[in-house]
Amino acid sequence: MEHHIQFSDKEKVLFLLDQRYLPEQEEFFACRKVADVIYALKEMVVRGAPAIGVTAAYGCFLTLREVEGSDWEKELSRKLDQLADARPTAVNLSWAVERMRRIWADMGKPTHDELEAKWLQEAVSIHKQDIETNRRMGRYGAELLSDGDRIMTHCNAGALATAGCGTALGVIRMAVEQGKRIEVVANETRPFLQGARLTSYELHRESIPVRVACDNAAALLMARGLVDKVVVGADRIAANGDVANKIGTYGLALLAEAHKIPFYVAAPLSTIDMHTPSGQDIPIEERTPREVTCFGGARIVPAGVGVFNFAFDITPSRLVTAIITEKGIFTPPYKESIAAGKKNDHE
Amino acid sequence: MEHHIQFSDKEKVLFLLDQRYLPEQEEFFACRKVADVIYALKEMVVRGAPAIGVTAAYGCFLTLREVEGSDWEKELSRKLDQLADARPTAVNLSWAVERMRRIWADMGKPTHDELEAKWLQEAVSIHKQDIETNRRMGRYGAELLSDGDRIMTHCNAGALATAGCGTALGVIRMAVEQGKRIEVVANETRPFLQGARLTSYELHRESIPVRVACDNAAALLMARGLVDKVVVGADRIAANGDVANKIGTYGLALLAEAHKIPFYVAAPLSTIDMHTPSGQDIPIEERTPREVTCFGGARIVPAGVGVFNFAFDITPSRLVTAIITEKGIFTPPYKESIAAGKKNDHE
Repeated sequence: MEHHIQFSDKEKVLFLLDQRYLPEQEEFFACRKVADVIYALKEMVVRGAPAIGVTAAYGCFLTLREVEGSDWEKELSRKLDQLADARPTAVNLSWAVERMRRIWADMGKPTHDELEAKWLQEAVSIHKQDIETNRRMGRYGAELLSDGDRIMTHCNAGALATAGCGTALGVIRMAVEQGKRIEVVANETRPFLQGARLTSYELHRESIPVRVACDNAAALLMARGLVDKVVVGADRIAANGDVANKIGTYGLALLAEAHKIPFYVAAPLSTIDMHTPSGQDIPIEERTPREVTCFGGARIVPAGVGVFNFAFDITPSRLVTAIITEKGIFTPPYKESIAAGKKNDHE
Repeated sequence: MEHHIQFSDKEKVLFLLDQRYLPEQEEFFACRKVADVIYALKEMVVRGAPAIGVTAAYGCFLTLREVEGSDWEKELSRKLDQLADARPTAVNLSWAVERMRRIWADMGKPTHDELEAKWLQEAVSIHKQDIETNRRMGRYGAELLSDGDRIMTHCNAGALATAGCGTALGVIRMAVEQGKRIEVVANETRPFLQGARLTSYELHRESIPVRVACDNAAALLMARGLVDKVVVGADRIAANGDVANKIGTYGLALLAEAHKIPFYVAAPLSTIDMHTPSGQDIPIEERTPREVTCFGGARIVPAGVGVFNFAFDITPSRLVTAIITEKGIFTPPYKESIAAGKKNDHE
């Protein structure tokens, strides 16, 4: 599962396990050019903030390989802008592109070959770092889970959303590694069904008990005492602790509050964006109505009827019990705990 | 749309517009025997508490027609029990069967023919009454809606859930008839998609503006000011005002409370069950996992993974702003307002 993002050094091709077709088909999508990477991001061949970051890093390298001629620097910069714009909400995309840009700037006036060598090294390093980050975050977060807990999670914040063992699912995996008995309720997460298709697929393969529920069942399950804690990932965390994550997360946080259930967010420091003061500054992606109106081949909404398809929502920090990162657990007041945590982050 | 339940007096066949295939196909399902009616109820060829009640009334008549011989009364009684047990949560099913039973009891020892004549008359009367009840309820409820309101509704509490213009959608239709401009947000309502498939279909045919949203978008839409009021139907209302309705209703009510949005329930008096003291006494139907794990032909949850598929949840009366009935609008304290309203109900 940790090998859903594979870079072939020999062929210089990025292979992505195509998440649109899971769990039914396990097929890889090959990215040879930046256009392939942008397509893969936009169409959600790969998704999940940390996985988007790793993909974008390799994407920078592939972009560089296709720009030629005397004006390659200008052309590269223009294409990197397009890559960074592929999806607006997850900050890890612009974070990765910015990191590559900074390395380039720090090199002064490198040759094409020099930059290629450096960027490949950096992409591989970001990839490896994410694996390690997941494990560290998981170990911190696992301390918050108790033997016998039933954890509700939303969307897929697992191996398929990262390069490693996952953020929210990394926390669960580490708790299981520690010998705790954990059961998971995976919200199906309409419209793309990341919970039904991906989270359950990941956990079931590892024999971690998981049951899928429709998103609208969360309140009943909480009222019946079937949820001890909620753990989710994040696409962007503002400097004040507001969390952008998959649509439905904000509602879940309100329901958790109403039922006095702890609500945890697991995310790497790269997902915390100090340039975004609060949740209202985070752009919310609106995606094609087709995701809602059609299912497989079948139309489920009559022709001519419009839809809302916001892909993310904002959970205000007051609803977040703690934020689990690779540098430890941040608790309220978040402005202070986040600032302190990010100060030592040199990425 | 009001003709989705049709009884052919000549053929003695109940025709039901098969709601499993809407909006793609408009096909009628013919019920000639009680087994057909039970199948139609269980498989949700027809659904919605008032529509279930009307269907059950005709179902009693069809049951009677197939019992013969000297022991027909005992056989009839046994089969009526099976019919009444087809679905547990919506009280209108047992309400209709009980009403038919009472008429039978009141007749003393009628002949088979006498009961047939009487029951057909009664089924037609329940059918007509529901149409009138919807309009009356709609007129009361419409007073609660303002010009320009955007109303969120869940599941389908429309013509397809009743014999008339609907409960929640009846309220909306009457407000539109009064010249108010109303826009509707229809929650798609997984897993059966009554909102995406049925509510949008009904309203779009009548050019009432409607947009579909995934269930998990409700909190974001409320936070963005896109929802002025929530109006839903009910499958059973307890004597204390607790409301059983489609899974997701309870969560919506909590979200409405958090955003200070009025939350209205529209239902006929027949949905209020004075024999059920509170919501915790209402049985919650659990339906086949297949509804959640499969979509069309495709599997969306990996084989071997279990699901939760509770079909309803309970909204405590404290979250309900008002209950709209054909006898007026009930407000808290519900124990008193319901008791007063039901006292004059002689059905």
